[in-house]
Amino acid sequence: SSRSAARAEPGRLSLAVAAVLPAGGSGERMGVPTPKQFCPILDRPLISYTLQALERVCWIKDIVVVVTRENMEAMRSIIRKYQHKHISLVEAGVTRHRSIFNGLNALAQDQPDCKLCKPEVVIIHDAVRPFVEEDVLLKVVIAAKAHGAAGAIRPLVSTVISPSADGCLDHSLERARYRASEMPQAFLFDVIYKAYQQCSDYDLEFGTECLHLALKYCDTKAKLVEGSPDLWKVTYKRDLYTAESIIKERISQELCVVMDTKEEKEPISYLLEALRNELNHVKVTCGALGYAGRDTQHILEQCYSFACVNFMTSDFHKTKKLLSMLEESDLSILYPVVVVSVHFFDFKLVPLSQRMENLMWIREFAKEVKKRNILLCGLLISYSQDEQKLQETLTQGAIIIAALIRERSLGFVGQLLVA
Amino acid sequence: SSRSAARAEPGRLSLAVAAVLPAGGSGERMGVPTPKQFCPILDRPLISYTLQALERVCWIKDIVVVVTRENMEAMRSIIRKYQHKHISLVEAGVTRHRSIFNGLNALAQDQPDCKLCKPEVVIIHDAVRPFVEEDVLLKVVIAAKAHGAAGAIRPLVSTVISPSADGCLDHSLERARYRASEMPQAFLFDVIYKAYQQCSDYDLEFGTECLHLALKYCDTKAKLVEGSPDLWKVTYKRDLYTAESIIKERISQELCVVMDTKEEKEPISYLLEALRNELNHVKVTCGALGYAGRDTQHILEQCYSFACVNFMTSDFHKTKKLLSMLEESDLSILYPVVVVSVHFFDFKLVPLSQRMENLMWIREFAKEVKKRNILLCGLLISYSQDEQKLQETLTQGAIIIAALIRERSLGFVGQLLVA
Ligand SMILES: [Mg+2]
Ligand SMILES: [Mg+2]
Repeated sequence: SSRSAARAEPGRLSLAVAAVLPAGGSGERMGVPTPKQFCPILDRPLISYTLQALERVCWIKDIVVVVTRENMEAMRSIIRKYQHKHISLVEAGVTRHRSIFNGLNALAQDQPDCKLCKPEVVIIHDAVRPFVEEDVLLKVVIAAKAHGAAGAIRPLVSTVISPSADGCLDHSLERARYRASEMPQAFLFDVIYKAYQQCSDYDLEFGTECLHLALKYCDTKAKLVEGSPDLWKVTYKRDLYTAESIIKERISQELCVVMDTKEEKEPISYLLEALRNELNHVKVTCGALGYAGRDTQHILEQCYSFACVNFMTSDFHKTKKLLSMLEESDLSILYPVVVVSVHFFDFKLVPLSQRMENLMWIREFAKEVKKRNILLCGLLISYSQDEQKLQETLTQGAIIIAALIRERSLGFVGQLLVA
Repeated sequence: SSRSAARAEPGRLSLAVAAVLPAGGSGERMGVPTPKQFCPILDRPLISYTLQALERVCWIKDIVVVVTRENMEAMRSIIRKYQHKHISLVEAGVTRHRSIFNGLNALAQDQPDCKLCKPEVVIIHDAVRPFVEEDVLLKVVIAAKAHGAAGAIRPLVSTVISPSADGCLDHSLERARYRASEMPQAFLFDVIYKAYQQCSDYDLEFGTECLHLALKYCDTKAKLVEGSPDLWKVTYKRDLYTAESIIKERISQELCVVMDTKEEKEPISYLLEALRNELNHVKVTCGALGYAGRDTQHILEQCYSFACVNFMTSDFHKTKKLLSMLEESDLSILYPVVVVSVHFFDFKLVPLSQRMENLMWIREFAKEVKKRNILLCGLLISYSQDEQKLQETLTQGAIIIAALIRERSLGFVGQLLVA
């Protein structure tokens, strides 16, 4: 496919690519004391999501993060806690352009005792644009290799106007003739480094646009690359809500229903159907534990939501086994993992209250695994012989599981819910 | 205060003000089949929030909503269901400008048998900007009265660039010299109506900016008014997430803890303290039922979250009374109302499981009130004589209540949670 051909590109070109991530901003626009790149989303700082997005691109060799001296230690602990790789820290300057220049200087030195090497192409990205995809990174890198400079653009959402000195409309720009300049951008290292070296103090203080420096100081006209809406910059407080919603949606794309293969029982296939109805757009997969095969391993690498089905038993061997597999994996380092221990019972045989008593272990267990960022809940499903009643109950169960996955809230950890 | 002085303004000027709300867009940018103005947020279409924002401004006399013929009936049922007032519907044209022109035509007719009157000033707003505040509406109206035209503006978030024909950077604009033109805008009716009447077909087809028409056809330079970040336009799918988060936050600003005044018991004052700690920025108020006084009435007019505290009893008189007061009020027409029935018990005296059995009525009751958009949950709090243990439990209880209020999810309706 053209996509896999494109993917092979940086390898084929054997292009040395590094990235500079200015993260020295103070976030005054947010109206919050924490700079926006350090604001937590699902308990993890925004910048860690951006690093994750760059890190998973195997052909980006080094990532230089530029932070203020005050935030240096906080940044180090973020790198440790979330196990980020290939990161070098450089101290920020007083403006965005000075910070980027510091990052480029660190790459330029190319000394034998320094682990950084001068790249052929350097990507410049923002710490507050966590949803950058490999394909746009690749496009700007390829275009920078060909043109010397390249940057992502987006259509304008609002008409741009020019005010007169008295605060009235002077003229409005024809919206279709302009674009918003976004990130990532990429440059031949020698082009952008020369631009910064020759850059006037005025530009270093008041400028914001790297493409402009390449044009002004190196006569290099950047190639413009159409980016996706996801490239938007976290700017206002509301953008943090948006980022959280997007991240929650992304990690709730798949639900793995864990069961023994022998459990091909009717109510369970009904439950799967109800889940597939309720969780529109969510891939519902099934996995069996105890085989320690590639199946489970595969699931543990990409799925952050589990429902562990127990049929007519208060026993929790299976849930416990899943939890210890999850604890051994690194899955919950980056995202909270939801585990719902689902128990089918016929409440006519044993009353609900007694069943709940039997399942009180979940409360204590949940406290333990919560420390590992695993959110455990119990769900009791009343197993009725009446088919219509059973269907209603299973629909309700699917609604509860869907809410637990989507909300991913600490507030419901250890609760026993009833469908 | 200057605010109340400003508020008096449209009355003092006895200015006739109407609003036109073009809502004919098809939402192709969202990548969803439903036009964005009809996308549901907490189960209510986005446009209803925008109408609510305009409606609560007492000096806006008429609101003309312009919708396509296909959406006319859906719009009528939205107006009925959410009890919107002062709305007139007009059929949309094929472009935004043609739709606005249709709206202005409806206002211009000024016929004795038509309930619409020609206003002195007309506001033009977007159906997809639900967070418009009275103060910015007032500012554009006052400025339009003085200058003939006025519009809200915002600083540019991204640098604006001009591409050359070959898709490369031609030049970038100096960000500080430009602004984004947003909504609302306001005009002397005669100015904007004349502009539309003289407007070329080309402008009616391809233009997007009303301020530009006032300038071009009536030589009227609009006064630009600095707007708040909340004026942003719901454009992409992610903006719907944002809008939902903002609305949820707004209706979760206050929690009313309902109790009898005689219940000045220690654990309850601890609970209030825990709630105040957990619900940062949330106003925790107390209300007593049964006095039918101004207190409760006041609460029922602005608060969408209730915790009804029952001490050492499975009785649910108080919760039931609150629920019937809520059902009688119109509170839940616009937003889902959360009610948590909180029960303190000493589990050493009676086991938890039996208590849960006693409280099963909540499940059935919750199903009933859910039809009225009231989300009922139960919360059992273990009452321990051990003060430290009690504190821990109450903190946990506050976390659960906070989660129920913030998430406002249908998934947990009727559940009995345990702290
Ligand atoms: Mg820029
Ligand atoms: Mg406009």
